[in-house]
Amino acid sequence: MSSITIIGTGNMARTIGARALAGGNTVEVMGRDRSKAADLAEALGGGATTGEWATAPAGDIVIVALLHTAVVPAVTQYGDALAGKVVVDISNPFNASFDGLAHPEGTSTAQEAAKAAPAGTAVVKAFNTVFRHVLEKGRPDIFLAGDDPQAKASVETFVKTLGLRPLDAGPLKMSHWLEGAGLLTVSLANHGVGNFDFALGATELPAS
Amino acid sequence: MSSITIIGTGNMARTIGARALAGGNTVEVMGRDRSKAADLAEALGGGATTGEWATAPAGDIVIVALLHTAVVPAVTQYGDALAGKVVVDISNPFNASFDGLAHPEGTSTAQEAAKAAPAGTAVVKAFNTVFRHVLEKGRPDIFLAGDDPQAKASVETFVKTLGLRPLDAGPLKMSHWLEGAGLLTVSLANHGVGNFDFALGATELPAS
Repeated sequence: MSSITIIGTGNMARTIGARALAGGNTVEVMGRDRSKAADLAEALGGGATTGEWATAPAGDIVIVALLHTAVVPAVTQYGDALAGKVVVDISNPFNASFDGLAHPEGTSTAQEAAKAAPAGTAVVKAFNTVFRHVLEKGRPDIFLAGDDPQAKASVETFVKTLGLRPLDAGPLKMSHWLEGAGLLTVSLANHGVGNFDFALGATELPAS
Repeated sequence: MSSITIIGTGNMARTIGARALAGGNTVEVMGRDRSKAADLAEALGGGATTGEWATAPAGDIVIVALLHTAVVPAVTQYGDALAGKVVVDISNPFNASFDGLAHPEGTSTAQEAAKAAPAGTAVVKAFNTVFRHVLEKGRPDIFLAGDDPQAKASVETFVKTLGLRPLDAGPLKMSHWLEGAGLLTVSLANHGVGNFDFALGATELPAS
């Protein structure tokens, strides 16, 4: 069981919150608009609580479920309130035409969030290759990237409580390619793959 | 059934050649060293033939199974001999430390090969996310990227003769992200995923 704080009140916050509660974790919701956060916590039920924006989260794992452009500003605004937390960036920083990323080679939203976070705060990239509705009803693989083994292990434990399989994609700089894999997933869907009801995953060879 | 020419005599050439023949396709092998190409054709059996380097390939689909640094030079050297062919780039242009690509954002080996190819020659990116031994014994998904719908369809048909599932990743510029997905696959394997016996693929939701 993990203690989770979700920053954000949108669809992805709702879906991850619901799955987190179903998996036996505690959930706190934070939004700039506290009434929206309270509404989501109430809709989620299961003892979900609400916290004040930019104050210390109750959860050990803080999932930033915001649009990619809002991730670094939120991490910056929270500042030391995130000290010692594991921050999970789930964003997809697509460019305006959805055919590339909004940031250059060699970085990623996750890496920029890590630069903005206080010392001792680990950032893990996760969940970004999964469509929300697939996360809601499916069993997608969850790719993780991060530099802190303990932080990554704690997110892996959380992912397993959701009944999902965490796949270690390596260091945080692999977030660039995970964000590219998010783009690839959208492009596959837009070109007829899986009627949008699929996720990128690792297919193992059958034992011979 | 497709007619395939493979440029290259290495392990990937051998594996694709063997699967292509098993799938009922014709196979021609070309190598800078014609005796190596002849050796591979003989080892493959199944009526595989040998062609002269940089002359017109017999196959409608030309699979360039060379190291990434050799792909554009080979396409340049073949020049007009490739006119009207469908050229398949399977390479993984990893940088020296295997933690990024050898070319900048916005391009890919496949796109550079397309620039080097004669007018009317379509380039399709495919097979690059699959480890050779997985292709040899497994049923991995094959991601394709290309700008020419007819060329892509012909590669899809070929992929199906191998008993594999082609997945349309979109236009040729998605090759950059497929090459990144190749990097992601290696990083996953290096971080304990699937004991190297896996491939990136699309997992569909079970029908509910």
